[in-house]
Amino acid sequence: MKYVYFFGAGKADGKGDMKDVLGGKGAGLAEMTRIGLPVPAGFTITTEACDHYFKHDRKYPRKLREEVAKHLEHLEKLTKKKLGDAKDPLLVSVRSGSARSMPGMMETILNLGLNDASVKGLAKATSNERFAYDAYRRFVQMYSSVVIGLPKEDLEERLRNLKNSLGVKDDTQVAADGWRRLVGEYKDYFRSKTGKDFPEDPVEQLWGAIGAVFESWMGEKAVTYRRVEKITGLLGTAVNVVQMVFGNTGEESGTGVCFTRDPSTGAKDFFGDFLLNAQGEDVVAGIRTPMHLRELSKVMPKVYKQLESVREKLEKHYRDMQDMEFTVENGKLYMLQTRTGKRSPAAAFRIAVDMVKEKLIKVEEALERITPQDIERLFYPVLDSKISRPELASRKIAEGINAVPGAAVGKAVFTAEDAEEWAARGERVILVRRETSPEDVGGMHVAQGILTATGGKTSHAAVVARGWGKCCIVGAEKLNIEAAAKRMSVDGRVVREGEWITLDGGDGSVYTGEIGLVRPEPPKDYETLLKWADDKRKLGVRTNADTPRDARAAREMGAEGIGLCRTEHMFFKDFEHPEKSAERQEAIQEMILAETSEARRRALDKLLPFQRRDFIGIFEAMDGLPVTVRLIDPPLHEFVPHDPEKQRELARKMGISPEAVARRVEQLHEANPMLGHRGCRLSITYPEILEMQVRAIIEAAIDCQKRGIKVLPEIMHPLTLDKKELKILETATRRVADAIITQANVKLEYLVGTMIELPRAALLAGEIAEVAEFFSFGTNDLTQTTMGLSRDDAGRFLPEYVDEHKAGIFNEDPFQSLDTAGVGMLIEWAIQRGRKTRPKLKVGICGEHGGDAESVKFCHRVGMNYVSASPFRVPISRLAAAQAVIEAKKNKRA
Amino acid sequence: MKYVYFFGAGKADGKGDMKDVLGGKGAGLAEMTRIGLPVPAGFTITTEACDHYFKHDRKYPRKLREEVAKHLEHLEKLTKKKLGDAKDPLLVSVRSGSARSMPGMMETILNLGLNDASVKGLAKATSNERFAYDAYRRFVQMYSSVVIGLPKEDLEERLRNLKNSLGVKDDTQVAADGWRRLVGEYKDYFRSKTGKDFPEDPVEQLWGAIGAVFESWMGEKAVTYRRVEKITGLLGTAVNVVQMVFGNTGEESGTGVCFTRDPSTGAKDFFGDFLLNAQGEDVVAGIRTPMHLRELSKVMPKVYKQLESVREKLEKHYRDMQDMEFTVENGKLYMLQTRTGKRSPAAAFRIAVDMVKEKLIKVEEALERITPQDIERLFYPVLDSKISRPELASRKIAEGINAVPGAAVGKAVFTAEDAEEWAARGERVILVRRETSPEDVGGMHVAQGILTATGGKTSHAAVVARGWGKCCIVGAEKLNIEAAAKRMSVDGRVVREGEWITLDGGDGSVYTGEIGLVRPEPPKDYETLLKWADDKRKLGVRTNADTPRDARAAREMGAEGIGLCRTEHMFFKDFEHPEKSAERQEAIQEMILAETSEARRRALDKLLPFQRRDFIGIFEAMDGLPVTVRLIDPPLHEFVPHDPEKQRELARKMGISPEAVARRVEQLHEANPMLGHRGCRLSITYPEILEMQVRAIIEAAIDCQKRGIKVLPEIMHPLTLDKKELKILETATRRVADAIITQANVKLEYLVGTMIELPRAALLAGEIAEVAEFFSFGTNDLTQTTMGLSRDDAGRFLPEYVDEHKAGIFNEDPFQSLDTAGVGMLIEWAIQRGRKTRPKLKVGICGEHGGDAESVKFCHRVGMNYVSASPFRVPISRLAAAQAVIEAKKNKRA
Repeated sequence: MKYVYFFGAGKADGKGDMKDVLGGKGAGLAEMTRIGLPVPAGFTITTEACDHYFKHDRKYPRKLREEVAKHLEHLEKLTKKKLGDAKDPLLVSVRSGSARSMPGMMETILNLGLNDASVKGLAKATSNERFAYDAYRRFVQMYSSVVIGLPKEDLEERLRNLKNSLGVKDDTQVAADGWRRLVGEYKDYFRSKTGKDFPEDPVEQLWGAIGAVFESWMGEKAVTYRRVEKITGLLGTAVNVVQMVFGNTGEESGTGVCFTRDPSTGAKDFFGDFLLNAQGEDVVAGIRTPMHLRELSKVMPKVYKQLESVREKLEKHYRDMQDMEFTVENGKLYMLQTRTGKRSPAAAFRIAVDMVKEKLIKVEEALERITPQDIERLFYPVLDSKISRPELASRKIAEGINAVPGAAVGKAVFTAEDAEEWAARGERVILVRRETSPEDVGGMHVAQGILTATGGKTSHAAVVARGWGKCCIVGAEKLNIEAAAKRMSVDGRVVREGEWITLDGGDGSVYTGEIGLVRPEPPKDYETLLKWADDKRKLGVRTNADTPRDARAAREMGAEGIGLCRTEHMFFKDFEHPEKSAERQEAIQEMILAETSEARRRALDKLLPFQRRDFIGIFEAMDGLPVTVRLIDPPLHEFVPHDPEKQRELARKMGISPEAVARRVEQLHEANPMLGHRGCRLSITYPEILEMQVRAIIEAAIDCQKRGIKVLPEIMHPLTLDKKELKILETATRRVADAIITQANVKLEYLVGTMIELPRAALLAGEIAEVAEFFSFGTNDLTQTTMGLSRDDAGRFLPEYVDEHKAGIFNEDPFQSLDTAGVGMLIEWAIQRGRKTRPKLKVGICGEHGGDAESVKFCHRVGMNYVSASPFRVPISRLAAAQAVIEAKKNKRA
Repeated sequence: MKYVYFFGAGKADGKGDMKDVLGGKGAGLAEMTRIGLPVPAGFTITTEACDHYFKHDRKYPRKLREEVAKHLEHLEKLTKKKLGDAKDPLLVSVRSGSARSMPGMMETILNLGLNDASVKGLAKATSNERFAYDAYRRFVQMYSSVVIGLPKEDLEERLRNLKNSLGVKDDTQVAADGWRRLVGEYKDYFRSKTGKDFPEDPVEQLWGAIGAVFESWMGEKAVTYRRVEKITGLLGTAVNVVQMVFGNTGEESGTGVCFTRDPSTGAKDFFGDFLLNAQGEDVVAGIRTPMHLRELSKVMPKVYKQLESVREKLEKHYRDMQDMEFTVENGKLYMLQTRTGKRSPAAAFRIAVDMVKEKLIKVEEALERITPQDIERLFYPVLDSKISRPELASRKIAEGINAVPGAAVGKAVFTAEDAEEWAARGERVILVRRETSPEDVGGMHVAQGILTATGGKTSHAAVVARGWGKCCIVGAEKLNIEAAAKRMSVDGRVVREGEWITLDGGDGSVYTGEIGLVRPEPPKDYETLLKWADDKRKLGVRTNADTPRDARAAREMGAEGIGLCRTEHMFFKDFEHPEKSAERQEAIQEMILAETSEARRRALDKLLPFQRRDFIGIFEAMDGLPVTVRLIDPPLHEFVPHDPEKQRELARKMGISPEAVARRVEQLHEANPMLGHRGCRLSITYPEILEMQVRAIIEAAIDCQKRGIKVLPEIMHPLTLDKKELKILETATRRVADAIITQANVKLEYLVGTMIELPRAALLAGEIAEVAEFFSFGTNDLTQTTMGLSRDDAGRFLPEYVDEHKAGIFNEDPFQSLDTAGVGMLIEWAIQRGRKTRPKLKVGICGEHGGDAESVKFCHRVGMNYVSASPFRVPISRLAAAQAVIEAKKNKRA
């Protein structure tokens, strides 16, 4: 095995596609060298060496020293300089570089090779003593802190003392002697702390630096970064040992960072910063304000021209926008790094579309380059960047899980009723709850954002908010919420009802006060690219929408129908006429409290006109597109009040005793409601609910059809587990529907199908398809039951299961990205069996996974007809569906 | 299609094995005719005709009238009598008879064919006018009530009035004239009620009777009986039209019922009752006390001898104990019915074993004839039959679900603590709770029986009680339990703490007062038969046992190891030293309240000696047999107190604030605990629990082994869902175990395996078997997750799903008898995949289904190594495992 790759003088052992082994930086240096760009020579120690190091108790591979020595010798020959040479010494930088960019997470040592002898050689060779000793003190400082781990503050204190004693303020004012004195002080300090002399041997220095870079891979901040960014599967970091070039040797020198296109707009402008007479660290540190690249064209026109040609060459070569680092040493340009540049979502679209137009890439490649996050972040409002960081930090009171990105500002309220009341008088509110339940839906809907103290990304609050694209932070565990007292407190800070708070759903931060928001407009390239995706994809993309407003919004986002219209929110909330919500609630509660099927029927009769109107609105919005309506699903327990006050109120309204209400509520309580009396089980035990709902759907459809609206209703029974069960439901559905259709003397086509959300239904899909005209996989519940995981409770241990540095059992939260191994196996089986029985069986998915790109790709692979996603995730699904086609094509080729 | 089958004069169209078509009675009559027994002639209208009748809107099959007419003519020819003849008329009985005995559920009409003309013929032919008019009035009465539906009371009132007017008391004292008068009065009444004359046409009478018998199949009591007895899949009832023979023509006549062996002991004694000069109804009605068969040998020695030969012939023919009805008419014997006789559990064993010894049947047949219920009922105590029915009825206060059969008597207590306190001072108690939780286990264990107001057959109370074979009634919904007030009330009747109550787990009845119990001793034939079963079966039979006492009991019942030793009960209860239970509870609660892993470890250290001692006891009891120990499974929530009083107490003991305790309890609360933080997830997040438990198991095993006890520990991780997860657990398990073994310098073999109780684990069993040395299917949870059914909550709708007269979606409660279609598919898949990876994978089942006969047979078919059942169900599993072998052999042959 080869552990070291050389590059220099136009030749390189490695290549640009060897990121896994050479890291991004090493691969870039090799590739740039190959294509003839000016790159200082050097060599890369592979990530495999790092992997070996940690797998073998921090021992290097056996031949590594030998290989390094060989390549160092080669480097010395090429540069005609020697490490530690007293005349004109070779200096090197030692930098980390893994396959994925982890900015600032790992270590770098510059100017390595300096010692008391070689510093003199450097001074002589550059005719610049001050420069040489400045470089030396930088090296000693960096080595002491990075390699040895001495406290930075102690070192900096000595620098401060030096400047004080010299009576100067800036480093630039310190002369050679001052730096020499500082080196001496650093070395004394080093000795006092370590009991050893500072290493003068450059080879010892080099191995110290290599070890430090390896160690930084497992440093706490790097580990945390990888966990947070979900970076997994890497071998480790590579180590790049590169000849030093200096941007700080005078006014003919400098250092810079540039992008081949504008990373925030995507415009084809050459974009970057340059600092005259400075080293790379100075740019990063932001001590001096750099000049724009434009100015460089005036200061160093030759260099600028050369850089422009590098820009062109690199972009053509990599066929993507590049982010480059360079240094100019005495008028000579050196490229130190190139990598694919990070860009804003808007820029991502613009660059992808422009490059297709420029014929640099194909449509497929453009589609592949857009990520779900690009789309997501394109639409969510964000905190106005005008507010200063310190200001922001001082206002931050808590952090939760960023369930739905975007930002929201409003006055804190602590109950759903208050939210509605405040909103009714025109206030913007943030609903703050311990956790939310369907009862809160009205309040959630009017709120700008939602904040809860418990729950994870798939808690009720998160799921509902995501459906609306509404900013939501959950599981902010530090919040001590006192709903009764209408306030919350965090570490002694109290926020009362009516006080402004701001949520940043991007990172889960909660701030006090009103912070300005900006909502980005999607660029025109977004439409272009999504149209390309539509042309490419085979999967239909529908939406999960429960109200006409959501339906319209989703249609604008490109939804081709509704895959899941949940009817239960309608029981609580009149979204079009909020003042009528109470009437609905009373009717549903009356229905639940009814003791006989006649009384239930009477209560349901009151709900019928409401439901019918809801469906009319939805059918109108979806004119010409299919609408899948799921009949009642949640347990009745969710519809009744749980606190005694509200129970008394309900009792008064119903004219029964509060005890009777309490008793019924108690009766409805379940140990595991998720596995309880819900879904189509309600329609089996209370067929009158099914009858009312089917009537509302069919009457609404007939009403719309008469007015020239094209209606394609699909009636869906949830939680089915057996063919016989579905047959009973289907028979009841058709009996009601066909009677209405016959009576109305019209023709109306409708489908009857089922959700597949229990393992048994998936297993017996072949039988169930004898009755069902379509399947819609409810992957939320299918995941819960297949894995035995309650999504409301999994927050207690699932993070540990997903964290690769803890148990690391799953790569992804299975509620966010489909568990293709387990749940996916059931889905595939069910589709095969279902289609065997009914070849034209329509198959879709309507769980949260329908808006997750990886899951959408799985849906394509297993041959579904469509996916259904929340309105705001429809574009993601459209894109993912296209990417799935491209991936499948590639896999077929491979 | 042939709808009518004739029998008579030694020939029959039908046969004994045509029960499905001819009903039990019709098939018996045909078969007895065939083998030359004296049977009156007649014909049977098939159950298929009945099926047609109900499927075609109560219309008879087209050719039925023709067929009946033809066979009636044949009957008249054979008997040389004519229906309705004025000289010597043919009379017939019309009786129902379905494939399964439904005693008293359907209708019978006797003496059909009498009218004003033929009654005179009968009088002449029998020279007995009184007999003829008595028969006539019986017929008119029966026809009016059964066929027409006139109220019986009105008819009986007229009989009473007649006797009053005649000044007589008994029917026997009424002469011909009186009966003639009564017939007139009945007919007047008939006319007044129906507006029509009583039908004189015998054919019209016959069709009236046939229709009435068919209708009785769908009568409310028959439907209810079938539902309660779970009789399904029958076509309907047959109708038997048979020439009347009379046991009431004088002292040379009579009627009787007899068994070929004693149905209560199984002894080979001819056993039965006989009534001189009487009709069949008189025996059933129990008006006169019949004589024993012995006496018949004296009164009618010839008839008795003939009957003895019939007995011998029938038993040889049917190769089983028969229950026969016969009539003697003027010294001539007629057999009216034969069927396989119902018998007591003890008799079932004795007859089966005796018949094998008599070479009447083979061992296989003997094994097939014993039912799980026979075994079950053999062991459970029952109410002493000495108490009178009315007495019993007056004491009955409620009815619940008979979760565990048997009976129990004790003083009512309303909390687990009270149960333990009362029991400690030697009182027998019945624990009455709304529902039970693991906290109650101590109280449940000391109670004689358990009564709950909620829950179904697989609620916590039922499952735990079944494991102990302890009488348990659940879901007695009428009970209004006020635990705080230490009392319960039902319909205004109050039972206070300390009052005696009696539970009959056989039928779910709850009685006030102390009713005597008897506990049957198993007969010696039981041992013989179970040994035969052991010789035959391939499946191992283990037991689910958590204490040394249960382990010993199970071993006596024939268990060949422990398939499931749950460790969590041990956290609550010291079964051997109850006074130390508190110490255990404190330690586990301290562990849960601990904030750091060190504090958790300290608490666990206190538990270690207890667990070790528990395991020592269990290993001792199971010397030489394998013991599967399941590590902690339930959510921690179940171990902490939920009421504020106990929380305060715990806080005081732990030296922390009650708020801290309350907060932790609240934190542990889960929306769906069944799918929450439990099972091996606890060992993933709190590895120190696993470490303590493994240490306790291995140290106990080493201790036992040193004392010459053979220990075969199998360590089982519950709720696994992924190979990686199990790998982490397995590694941790072996690390702890191997270190102890090495340190002790012994050799100890142990296995590490997993439960398969989540669909995902079953689906990915192939991977999981790379790590697991054995699988144990936890079919309780696998059923819950596969079907999405919480067994605690399913009581709300599952009965409707199982009831064939409601939704009828399942044949059996899937928590009692395995859902082989769905859950079974997963099990089969998992076994195949698991064995593919690890051919010697040991596979068992440890859910409740391991003690259900049908489920055990499934386990045999899919190739498991063993089943594990509650101690008291071990014999059932032994038998079922043998029956499975026999069935498989038969199926192979077929």
